[in-house]
Amino acid sequence: MNKYSFLDDYSEGCHPDILKTLADTNMTQQTAYGGDEYSERARGLIRQHLGNDTTPIYFVSGGTLSNIIGISSVLKSHEAIISANSGHIVLHETGAIEATGHKIIQVPSADGKLTPDGVQSALDSNAHFPHMAKPRLVYISNATEAGTIYSKEELSSLSKICKKNNLLLLLDGARLCTALAADNNDLTLKDVCEFTDIFWIGGTKAGALIGEAIVIPNQDLAEDFAFHIKQRGGLLAKGRLLGIQFLCLFENKLFMELAKYSNAMANKLSSAIVDCGYSLAAKTDSNQVFPILPNTLIEKLQQSFDFYLWEKVDNQHSTIRLVTSWATDEVQVDSFIGIVKEI
Amino acid sequence: MNKYSFLDDYSEGCHPDILKTLADTNMTQQTAYGGDEYSERARGLIRQHLGNDTTPIYFVSGGTLSNIIGISSVLKSHEAIISANSGHIVLHETGAIEATGHKIIQVPSADGKLTPDGVQSALDSNAHFPHMAKPRLVYISNATEAGTIYSKEELSSLSKICKKNNLLLLLDGARLCTALAADNNDLTLKDVCEFTDIFWIGGTKAGALIGEAIVIPNQDLAEDFAFHIKQRGGLLAKGRLLGIQFLCLFENKLFMELAKYSNAMANKLSSAIVDCGYSLAAKTDSNQVFPILPNTLIEKLQQSFDFYLWEKVDNQHSTIRLVTSWATDEVQVDSFIGIVKEI
Amino acid sequence: MNKYSFLDDYSEGCHPDILKTLADTNMTQQTAYGGDEYSERARGLIRQHLGNDTTPIYFVSGGTLSNIIGISSVLKSHEAIISANSGHIVLHETGAIEATGHKIIQVPSADGKLTPDGVQSALDSNAHFPHMAKPRLVYISNATEAGTIYSKEELSSLSKICKKNNLLLLLDGARLCTALAADNNDLTLKDVCEFTDIFWIGGTKAGALIGEAIVIPNQDLAEDFAFHIKQRGGLLAKGRLLGIQFLCLFENKLFMELAKYSNAMANKLSSAIVDCGYSLAAKTDSNQVFPILPNTLIEKLQQSFDFYLWEKVDNQHSTIRLVTSWATDEVQVDSFIGIVKEI
Amino acid sequence: MNKYSFLDDYSEGCHPDILKTLADTNMTQQTAYGGDEYSERARGLIRQHLGNDTTPIYFVSGGTLSNIIGISSVLKSHEAIISANSGHIVLHETGAIEATGHKIIQVPSADGKLTPDGVQSALDSNAHFPHMAKPRLVYISNATEAGTIYSKEELSSLSKICKKNNLLLLLDGARLCTALAADNNDLTLKDVCEFTDIFWIGGTKAGALIGEAIVIPNQDLAEDFAFHIKQRGGLLAKGRLLGIQFLCLFENKLFMELAKYSNAMANKLSSAIVDCGYSLAAKTDSNQVFPILPNTLIEKLQQSFDFYLWEKVDNQHSTIRLVTSWATDEVQVDSFIGIVKEI
Repeated sequence: MNKYSFLDDYSEGCHPDILKTLADTNMTQQTAYGGDEYSERARGLIRQHLGNDTTPIYFVSGGTLSNIIGISSVLKSHEAIISANSGHIVLHETGAIEATGHKIIQVPSADGKLTPDGVQSALDSNAHFPHMAKPRLVYISNATEAGTIYSKEELSSLSKICKKNNLLLLLDGARLCTALAADNNDLTLKDVCEFTDIFWIGGTKAGALIGEAIVIPNQDLAEDFAFHIKQRGGLLAKGRLLGIQFLCLFENKLFMELAKYSNAMANKLSSAIVDCGYSLAAKTDSNQVFPILPNTLIEKLQQSFDFYLWEKVDNQHSTIRLVTSWATDEVQVDSFIGIVKEI
Repeated sequence: MNKYSFLDDYSEGCHPDILKTLADTNMTQQTAYGGDEYSERARGLIRQHLGNDTTPIYFVSGGTLSNIIGISSVLKSHEAIISANSGHIVLHETGAIEATGHKIIQVPSADGKLTPDGVQSALDSNAHFPHMAKPRLVYISNATEAGTIYSKEELSSLSKICKKNNLLLLLDGARLCTALAADNNDLTLKDVCEFTDIFWIGGTKAGALIGEAIVIPNQDLAEDFAFHIKQRGGLLAKGRLLGIQFLCLFENKLFMELAKYSNAMANKLSSAIVDCGYSLAAKTDSNQVFPILPNTLIEKLQQSFDFYLWEKVDNQHSTIRLVTSWATDEVQVDSFIGIVKEI
Repeated sequence: MNKYSFLDDYSEGCHPDILKTLADTNMTQQTAYGGDEYSERARGLIRQHLGNDTTPIYFVSGGTLSNIIGISSVLKSHEAIISANSGHIVLHETGAIEATGHKIIQVPSADGKLTPDGVQSALDSNAHFPHMAKPRLVYISNATEAGTIYSKEELSSLSKICKKNNLLLLLDGARLCTALAADNNDLTLKDVCEFTDIFWIGGTKAGALIGEAIVIPNQDLAEDFAFHIKQRGGLLAKGRLLGIQFLCLFENKLFMELAKYSNAMANKLSSAIVDCGYSLAAKTDSNQVFPILPNTLIEKLQQSFDFYLWEKVDNQHSTIRLVTSWATDEVQVDSFIGIVKEI
Repeated sequence: MNKYSFLDDYSEGCHPDILKTLADTNMTQQTAYGGDEYSERARGLIRQHLGNDTTPIYFVSGGTLSNIIGISSVLKSHEAIISANSGHIVLHETGAIEATGHKIIQVPSADGKLTPDGVQSALDSNAHFPHMAKPRLVYISNATEAGTIYSKEELSSLSKICKKNNLLLLLDGARLCTALAADNNDLTLKDVCEFTDIFWIGGTKAGALIGEAIVIPNQDLAEDFAFHIKQRGGLLAKGRLLGIQFLCLFENKLFMELAKYSNAMANKLSSAIVDCGYSLAAKTDSNQVFPILPNTLIEKLQQSFDFYLWEKVDNQHSTIRLVTSWATDEVQVDSFIGIVKEI
């Protein structure tokens, strides 16, 4: 890769503190399968944010695996999931949820978010029992696949309709760090813990090499959770690898600081582009920027940078997507802005 | 853990070279999902041992996940697996294979190995079609769960009966390193590649933090393999983590050297125990030792060491299991032997 | 049920010829599991319509089971189905297909039919491999869930796009009888056999008690089909029950004649209603009629008849659904029409 | 089939009363999907034997489908079944249970029965959690696949160990009729209802064309049962077909009388063979007879009869299996005995 990449937020390795801690602890002997002291300490640190000392927390290696385990562990075979049609489980997981036997009921969504009205419409059109699968779990992600975030009011109202209809609420937090660090965010981890039944805190996009922390506020769902982690291939012999990373992220506020930096870089790009008179296809809530630019400018930028061409707007303009991360080089951001300004 | 542990071969982190390379490469931008240069170089190094420049190789995070992906990707829903009744997929994966929809036909085995006769008996007693699932894949592990290893002759004869009966042969190589490094081993990676349709090279027990390299000599099976990795949650965004580890293991022969060290430590324990007049419940082929000791001696050893009580032999004696690894501290081995000699 | 029912086409038992043949053959001893002489003769009769003496045919008890077996037997776990969003497998089978592990890609459809453009759009939006399940099978039904039927030209063009894209074409023929018997139909069983890879001929709505005949023109798909029937619980010990019914339906053209009668009754209802000045929400292609009537008239009709209120049109009018069958009593049809004319 | 068959108990159609009732009720309009009046009356008649007016009862078409639905509806994905290694779900259902995602733990059994000790040993050897699937359901059949039957004492003691270990007890009653009608039986349907959580009453071998009545004494398990019937393809549009058959079997005690006749025919064969000085490989509890005969006699019998050669005993003798049914022709039984006596 000779050009600088704004393709995604996982092109680099991990925050150097993590590598240092891995090295410092490397030769200690630890109990396997997540019973190590680092995982235990990481759980303790995360629980400080949850407002509950006993909330079960499990570490697994990735996001799709978290979705597989989290969803299949709480559903019986006739139960279905309600998701926005842009949900990661709908579009980008190769049918992983269906492969565990469950139907996903899709709700149209323009901005990646699910609303109580959307949930209600899914319930209404899936009520012809027993000829239809029974809706039992609502899947949302925050930040969404479109980079938008949920407000406390929105999450609370989703929680209400779920409780009213005996639906579980699951939040995929692969991008939770950048959501919570967004300027217009008013949610805390404690709120997420209060409003959802199960959620995860993504590590990969937050500065770790791999890893998600699955948090289960609805403790009934946790009873046999370890079986499901093992059954789906998610139980690492050297669980310390996951524990150490979350330990580093939640010591010294690294988790939030890295996300704030990532968002700040996105804002810097976004503001500069708007200042140059260009518009955005979507508001920059977190670390994804969707500027609409002249194709000539895009071609110029492509000589030095990698990014996704998102959508054709008209014959002269296209939307591109720029993603920043904890590792984004501000010099490259400035260089990108320089080219935009120049033209 | 205050005592020194001979419980397993994954109590420590990873070989220091791996941590160093992770640090050295950390901030380079890499293509995600296994498209990084380190994964590509690791594949090249492994292929040098296989005798084929084009053999497909994929990296995934763990052993159970490799079994899930490897097995479910090659079978149709009515096809079954033949395995020794001591196979890891039978006993210690929480029904992971059945969770993908497939039946496992168990063949009794005293030493963890499967023989052509065992395969034939499974075929004979599962031929009442279509009332019985159709045997299609033979699962073996090397080293086996009992620590025994396959000879070239044994693997070749299994390969023959499989080919004759249109069965695929899969070798679970979670412990392949210690098998290939065993004193009485006559197999090479090239042989394994010749005799099997798909196998994996375990990293976790070979000095890595996580990771298995899935090798697919029968290239027809590889066509859509990446879909299955993704669908089962095994596709890491930062695939570099896996590639870098195998790069380190296969540069400078680390993979074999660490395994030889591990076996040597087991042999040292084994020989000293036998020299003291005690017998072994099983021959020490690789890195597992099963001495039969007086209970009084066992109690004494337990004051300083952790290990599994394997089986009661009589009122005065029990079998214990000692596992060594690339990280075993020879000082502790000597100390263990000292206590045995003393009593 | 005190009122006469136009709710569905399975409120009565079966054509009396079937009961007579069941009685006539009852005490003969027959080979189990579909090996009986009646099933064999029924296959022979059906094959006379297919233009191929060797086409594999299997009988199973119902439509959802046929979908489960037909679809899961031909797909590998990462492969997906393309269906109209009104497809029976999408809406009314309780997630049966997902329960076998497969994702259904939904294509919007106003009239229940799938077009080559619809298939192409599904391919285009599901091409981000390996992050998306691989489209492999196109599911259509004829007559569709909306009562519409495919023309020869339409089915041929679907077949073409499928072949071009390595997609299998499956036709759910639960209502195939009324489709083939429709006035505007130009398809034959031979055409269906030519254009699809697998399809079934529904018996339940054609005058049988239960039963579907699964036909597999693409014989490669039939190799292990019996295993799948057994594995999904579809292999009846007394397979004669299914064979005898299809034997009766395909002797003396009963299959087509009953469907023609059913369609004729629908046409009679439809024409009379239109003659009275009311409009239809959809054209009456087969045995479903969707008149738009004043609510006052509907209430009057409900005193003597059962039928579905389909949709509110405005404050004074609603669409209702009337379904006729081989068993529809023409006296009741006349009585229904009488009330419509009267008001 | 020119010879008279003792191969199985499903070579003929059904008891004539069933055909008569099918004919008598044929043209009445009935609510679909099991809501018909015949199914409701059949449930009422069966409940008279259960000692509980509210026990849920569902009708499905076959035995394997009952196992699929009954088992998959009550288990979560990490839960396993304990079964004798001779269980129908282990040996003769093409991996149907595994295809729903569940592991079967096999317990060796010489006579087809499972004992409390067998259950305990399965629990003991499957307790390494979470690395092993969690035992949750015990599967037994009565009569067993070997023709043996459970006493009240045996079933009661199985029930006790299940309750003590939070295990559900499921009884596959495909052959329940001949078990309950056996001379040495002391179980009633009420007992079965008391001791099990879910069981079924087989119709196919009891004189019906198809059909099993699934009874759910543990009513918590019934909550969403209809979803599972539909999802697995077991919900017949014309549910009347199943209801009418059980209505006939449970009116006028046909269910028990036919089974008694079947057992009597087996006893007649068995006694006569023993009287001739031959021994039996197993006691004749129900409608299966396992005589050990000289090969020369067997060859002679094969000229007029079809039956299974079960096992070679020595160079001159083999075990054969004879199965009788409600439809067995006593003239043929006498003729069989005549040949045995003659030689």
